[in-house]
Amino acid sequence: MSQETTPASLTATEAARRIRDGELTSQELVQSCLDRIEEHEETIGAWVHLDKEYALAQAEAAQELRQSGESLGPLHGVPVGIKDIFDTQDMPTENGTVLHAGRRPKSDSTVVALLRQAGAIIMGKTVTTELAVMHPGKTTNPHDPKRTPGGSSSGSAAAVASFMVPLATGSQTNGSMIRPASFCGIYGYKPTHGLISRHGVLLQSRFLDQIGVFSRTLEDAALIAQVLIAHDPNDPDTRPHATPHLVKVVAEEPPVPPRLAFAATPAWDEFADDDSKQAFTELLEHLGDSAETVTLDKPFEQVYGWLKTIMGADQAMNYHREYKRGKDKLSPVMVDMIEQGQKVLAVDYNQAAATRDGLNRLLSEIFDEYDAIITPASTGQAPVGLDTTGNPIFSTPWTFCGVPAVSLPLLQGSDGMPIGVQLVGPKGDDARLLRTARWLAGAVMEKEV
Amino acid sequence: MSQETTPASLTATEAARRIRDGELTSQELVQSCLDRIEEHEETIGAWVHLDKEYALAQAEAAQELRQSGESLGPLHGVPVGIKDIFDTQDMPTENGTVLHAGRRPKSDSTVVALLRQAGAIIMGKTVTTELAVMHPGKTTNPHDPKRTPGGSSSGSAAAVASFMVPLATGSQTNGSMIRPASFCGIYGYKPTHGLISRHGVLLQSRFLDQIGVFSRTLEDAALIAQVLIAHDPNDPDTRPHATPHLVKVVAEEPPVPPRLAFAATPAWDEFADDDSKQAFTELLEHLGDSAETVTLDKPFEQVYGWLKTIMGADQAMNYHREYKRGKDKLSPVMVDMIEQGQKVLAVDYNQAAATRDGLNRLLSEIFDEYDAIITPASTGQAPVGLDTTGNPIFSTPWTFCGVPAVSLPLLQGSDGMPIGVQLVGPKGDDARLLRTARWLAGAVMEKEV
Repeated sequence: MSQETTPASLTATEAARRIRDGELTSQELVQSCLDRIEEHEETIGAWVHLDKEYALAQAEAAQELRQSGESLGPLHGVPVGIKDIFDTQDMPTENGTVLHAGRRPKSDSTVVALLRQAGAIIMGKTVTTELAVMHPGKTTNPHDPKRTPGGSSSGSAAAVASFMVPLATGSQTNGSMIRPASFCGIYGYKPTHGLISRHGVLLQSRFLDQIGVFSRTLEDAALIAQVLIAHDPNDPDTRPHATPHLVKVVAEEPPVPPRLAFAATPAWDEFADDDSKQAFTELLEHLGDSAETVTLDKPFEQVYGWLKTIMGADQAMNYHREYKRGKDKLSPVMVDMIEQGQKVLAVDYNQAAATRDGLNRLLSEIFDEYDAIITPASTGQAPVGLDTTGNPIFSTPWTFCGVPAVSLPLLQGSDGMPIGVQLVGPKGDDARLLRTARWLAGAVMEKEV
Repeated sequence: MSQETTPASLTATEAARRIRDGELTSQELVQSCLDRIEEHEETIGAWVHLDKEYALAQAEAAQELRQSGESLGPLHGVPVGIKDIFDTQDMPTENGTVLHAGRRPKSDSTVVALLRQAGAIIMGKTVTTELAVMHPGKTTNPHDPKRTPGGSSSGSAAAVASFMVPLATGSQTNGSMIRPASFCGIYGYKPTHGLISRHGVLLQSRFLDQIGVFSRTLEDAALIAQVLIAHDPNDPDTRPHATPHLVKVVAEEPPVPPRLAFAATPAWDEFADDDSKQAFTELLEHLGDSAETVTLDKPFEQVYGWLKTIMGADQAMNYHREYKRGKDKLSPVMVDMIEQGQKVLAVDYNQAAATRDGLNRLLSEIFDEYDAIITPASTGQAPVGLDTTGNPIFSTPWTFCGVPAVSLPLLQGSDGMPIGVQLVGPKGDDARLLRTARWLAGAVMEKEV
């Protein structure tokens, strides 16, 4: 699917530079992306709302602003795809359910507002699973239309993988960033819980919901994430803090070679497929002394149940209106999850929630010794079939703990489909995680050469 | 009960000054307090653990330290009573239940550690109701032994009111600071949720538990609170912040006369007794233009149910071990609360918890116009009888919202018993609340002269 000769094939970093330097116009870039969409959208189905004229109009305005000599944001003129659970005041936001068909938010989500402020073109809205949970939308995998792109951020991952946009936003409540990134062969970066505001984003679970970004390079992930990481009083879990220098740090060489801890997680034996096990074995051999195997402590075996308890109860609360008014318009899997969630007892919920600090203390012991945990991003290749979006289980421990994670498109399965490698870092140390990820990508490329 | 001529009658501020200046020794002060205890403890029953020799030994050590010329903490040599739910490494901590009889914590609670660091003498442990909930301990009201001192911080309030100590610590999960202060005729100050660490304190409800202090003057409340307000990574709800200058600000005159909002709360009609209604009417008349009546918005009618939902479920979780191992040793009222709490659904709990931010926004609108809310501290005088500790209902909205509150001993009932006036301030603006409280106390004294 690579595209060496058109503006749509550029990284966001390079495209932004060329626009800034007058070597490319935002219209040319957006038109090139629209051409890609024109060519592939029928098969891939990444978009739920796309107004070509409006995208070009934004590009024109961006170009005019540039010519006015005003100072430009870091994403000036660069198109970004927005998962259709982020409110946009100028486009519908339908959250993947007919119950919200035609919904027009009055204002932008904080993420979209920050993107506009940085000069980005809001290209359109990408397909999400129903209410960002399990039931799939129309999107197919860009590498094989018979396979799922993963979910819930299906359209965003597929759009970036198929060069329809260089960047897109997504979200993860269990494995909705890392899994589609793995299945689609791109980078997916989910920052530390609380770094990116969820204000104006469909609320599924305050405890679990986390915003992330898709890109085709780590530099691009750093570029957009740095725009989005900001304290927002409207999201009570964001905090005032110094902006991490993601763009600067991701470009640096690590001062000493990073040490990685391979943590298979309790899901490995049962859920990693043979491709994944084979590919990881080879990768670890190649990494040699740089990676050591560690075992996650016993409490991590229970994290799957704890996440389910919290997610179910939070879905039951936050999707109560949809359930009450339109149960028959929800998928059976959604109805079942809500009904299970309605029965969760407060003591069980709170006991599950109270384990998070202890789990993070256990992770801290690993991060005292290692720069990052290396672990599968998905069960393996994207499974064949479009009726599910695959299993989020390899993201569960990290989402629950709120630690930053990134999926790197470094492995390949026996059918030639991409398989991601997940790197997980300590809470709040996102810049170092991205730097370690870039080092790892380099180390693997070396092998391939 | 006043005691003009002994060291025990001094305020903490004055006693600390005299000790610092060599006009009084800590031994003299502690001995004077022990004499008060000797005289009144049989009737009042404020203490559950008191080792006179050990208290005097601490005083002697404090005095030696002073003579060594080392710099002294703000409470150097001053005895403080500690509610028996705060862990002390050198005294038992039994949490008001036989199930914890003889319990010896391995380390100090953060509050006790900070008090020692400030030079305070840890006088002993004061009576708490069973697990800081409803079932009363042995303490009687210092103004009338047939009446309750209030609860759950019964012993601490009674000890300060009867001049056994100038200062004591307490806690409030519903009305356990403000009500006993009102019934015992002293100051009770419950800072903003999250200012004082609860590490090492019996956990009843992370959402609701808040630490407070009892004193006989507002200056003393500021003195001890300033020692205790500190970020503690062991309490996830405390935050790093600049230390508020309570001692300095409480001594200042307000730049302009404060404006008070009289908010009767939805409990007023049914639960405030005739004494209380009468006394408040007179107080408001006296305050004239300084106080205006406001009505709390409708959601505040539901706050009583929300608090009950959260408190019950949290008791069920946090007192699970006591219930499982020793249900027959718990009071029927405690067993009933736990069993109700076990049935609370996560959706109901989380819906209740989610209302707090909205309620605080409603309060903010009041605080945009007024310096503080003036409102009853209790139903009226301490009720006759020792089988309950009275009704916490006039604290419920403020505890739920986590806003700072102080009870001022400014009114009197028809039996000559004290009745407190409660002032409530905006979250985090504790210093201004104490300054406003001091202004109010002055305004009322003026009237009495």
